[in-house]
Amino acid sequence: MKRTIIKILQRVEAADPATPFAIELWDGTRETFGEGEPLFSVRFNTEEALRHTLANRFLGFGESYMDGSLDVEGDWDRLFRMGLGSKFQHALPPVKTLARFVMLRLKTRDTHRKARANIMRHYDLGNDFYSLWLDRSMTYSCAYFATPETPLEEAQEAKLERICRKLRLEPGMTLLDVGCGWGSLVIYAAQHYDVRATGCTLSENQAELARQRIREAGLEGQVNIVLKDYRDVEGTFDRWVSVGMAEHVGKGFIPRFIRHIAKRLRPGGLGLLHFIGKDKTSFGDPWTLTYIFPGGYIPALPEVLQPMGWHDLRTADIENLRPHYALTLDRWHERFERHVDEIREMYDARFVRMWRLFLLSSAAGFRYGDTRVFQILFSHGATNELPLTREELMQAPLSSAPPASP
Amino acid sequence: MKRTIIKILQRVEAADPATPFAIELWDGTRETFGEGEPLFSVRFNTEEALRHTLANRFLGFGESYMDGSLDVEGDWDRLFRMGLGSKFQHALPPVKTLARFVMLRLKTRDTHRKARANIMRHYDLGNDFYSLWLDRSMTYSCAYFATPETPLEEAQEAKLERICRKLRLEPGMTLLDVGCGWGSLVIYAAQHYDVRATGCTLSENQAELARQRIREAGLEGQVNIVLKDYRDVEGTFDRWVSVGMAEHVGKGFIPRFIRHIAKRLRPGGLGLLHFIGKDKTSFGDPWTLTYIFPGGYIPALPEVLQPMGWHDLRTADIENLRPHYALTLDRWHERFERHVDEIREMYDARFVRMWRLFLLSSAAGFRYGDTRVFQILFSHGATNELPLTREELMQAPLSSAPPASP
Repeated sequence: MKRTIIKILQRVEAADPATPFAIELWDGTRETFGEGEPLFSVRFNTEEALRHTLANRFLGFGESYMDGSLDVEGDWDRLFRMGLGSKFQHALPPVKTLARFVMLRLKTRDTHRKARANIMRHYDLGNDFYSLWLDRSMTYSCAYFATPETPLEEAQEAKLERICRKLRLEPGMTLLDVGCGWGSLVIYAAQHYDVRATGCTLSENQAELARQRIREAGLEGQVNIVLKDYRDVEGTFDRWVSVGMAEHVGKGFIPRFIRHIAKRLRPGGLGLLHFIGKDKTSFGDPWTLTYIFPGGYIPALPEVLQPMGWHDLRTADIENLRPHYALTLDRWHERFERHVDEIREMYDARFVRMWRLFLLSSAAGFRYGDTRVFQILFSHGATNELPLTREELMQAPLSSAPPASP
Repeated sequence: MKRTIIKILQRVEAADPATPFAIELWDGTRETFGEGEPLFSVRFNTEEALRHTLANRFLGFGESYMDGSLDVEGDWDRLFRMGLGSKFQHALPPVKTLARFVMLRLKTRDTHRKARANIMRHYDLGNDFYSLWLDRSMTYSCAYFATPETPLEEAQEAKLERICRKLRLEPGMTLLDVGCGWGSLVIYAAQHYDVRATGCTLSENQAELARQRIREAGLEGQVNIVLKDYRDVEGTFDRWVSVGMAEHVGKGFIPRFIRHIAKRLRPGGLGLLHFIGKDKTSFGDPWTLTYIFPGGYIPALPEVLQPMGWHDLRTADIENLRPHYALTLDRWHERFERHVDEIREMYDARFVRMWRLFLLSSAAGFRYGDTRVFQILFSHGATNELPLTREELMQAPLSSAPPASP
């Protein structure tokens, strides 16, 4: 076991000597690799942690880190950058997690009840928890950074504003937001564009807080939150939007999700689909699927575009916000660590380690790995009403309105 | 036959009375449809023209127009807008061209010799012909219009500049342009970004004129034109670009074309693929395939993105320039009509009618139909060197250089 890991790491070292690091084992062994002062060290406190990591890669690493049988010191970013690099991947022994993965996939039959349980598991961790490390508006998706230094609050507002501009919102239009979270987008769109918005979520905690905020903003009657599955929403809308929800639909259910758009968006209407995606269809990571997003599936861009074509949803523009999600996760992680003692009190040490690993590994996935954020702007059928250039698309529309009283 | 067309047009009229038009038949019959003064009239000079159009749709319409057995007067744009609309399509009898289409598909085996013949057929019509209606730089692809009034020359230069910026060209870099046409992009990139560029074309006329222009610009040694199939190009390049060439590769050969990119673009390098595409895989139009682009195939966006994913070509941005190609074709058509007498002299009346229909129907396809222009910016493998925002991506780079002497 010891010999295996040292041999693997020597191969990595030979391929990439510019990333010096150390490993420490349960018996006190310490080995350094690469040239210069180690940037990070990984300590395997038990032989089982090493065995599990070698056999199951990130699932083993993650589970060992969660239970404290593995520790990391130093630069997490460089650790992930090395770990996600092709040199490291090529040096690893074959994966043994496929069977486990297939089990997970079999579990993700997307019944309404199952969908509800999956969403509650993640989003109903408690509004108190999320409010500790999300921005004020509690927007739980990739922000838009004009510069890497832009404050998170500003970057989240910029994201909401850009979505409204892309959608060419006008006063009196109806907007459906599928997976509305704590309501930041529907509230923003009603306040700044005077639309009549419906937000849809499966999380009771989200619906409750969103409704409270709508009352506080005096938007009752103009903004409506429905606590139901998107498949149960009725009516047609002038505009359709979904931010960070397609990832929860599950593999095999993407075509049905897209068909729903064509049913709910009026012909000639505009929609925007914002989701974490990949360039290539892939199995997904078993650790994240087990602990963070049960039932989730990150679709490849063609998997989403293909059914859009079948339903005459015409792609007008695709923006890839990949680096923006890395920056967003960096900010969330900073805030998370500032409140880590409170969070340990609310849950326990294992939860803290789990969530930390989620935030850090996700940031690295966008920076060095295979995750992207795609924002697809589309029309239902033909339209020639969109501006000619991106510059014009991003200008403040003439019709933007002050906050409306219902 | 007469009764059939009148019944069809009455169904169209009932669905869309706001488009008044007339038809005239060989026997002097004239019928008007819709409310108000006809916007256009279609005259079937023979019963065969009507029969052919009803049986084979645009193939029959196009062939009848070419041989003069069908005429159109008035607003072509409104004619195509009606013809491409779903109301008209639904009123038509079933298509009978499928067998013919399959024949065409069977003919498009993309051997090197066949590829060469297809390209020569279109692009070797003569530089004199193309120079009559293209812009000064002879850029034969979608331009970029800051406004609908932007002059064509300016719009073509804006397109070249935007491609160079997206590619983050820097002095000394090597650039491969697959399907370089008359060399406008390789010359522009060498003059303004001081790169070492290789252009590849299968058209002898294009290569000859491109080489002459390179000599005139004093860029010999810095810009090189190779008259060969892209599959025969060797070496790796810092940057890879292709504008309006993927449409000629042929269905079934897209994956091989994409694999070529991964072979020729160095890891970490950037590429830009600009092509006419669709949202949904479709058969293609038999008239255009027969008379304008033999061997051509307009791929759906997912058909291109999927093999890109397999070869670690990572999508950074996708711009849809659809309305820009409609404007480009409008300008080409205006110029074409200004020189129509010269062109009739060079070829004959049938050629003039064929090319007119190509320009007009293509513009309508972008405006009302299912054709798009996608510009995919991508990297070969991981890179974090692209700017954070589109605004920054479009700014003039610090490193842009004055024309270089070789």
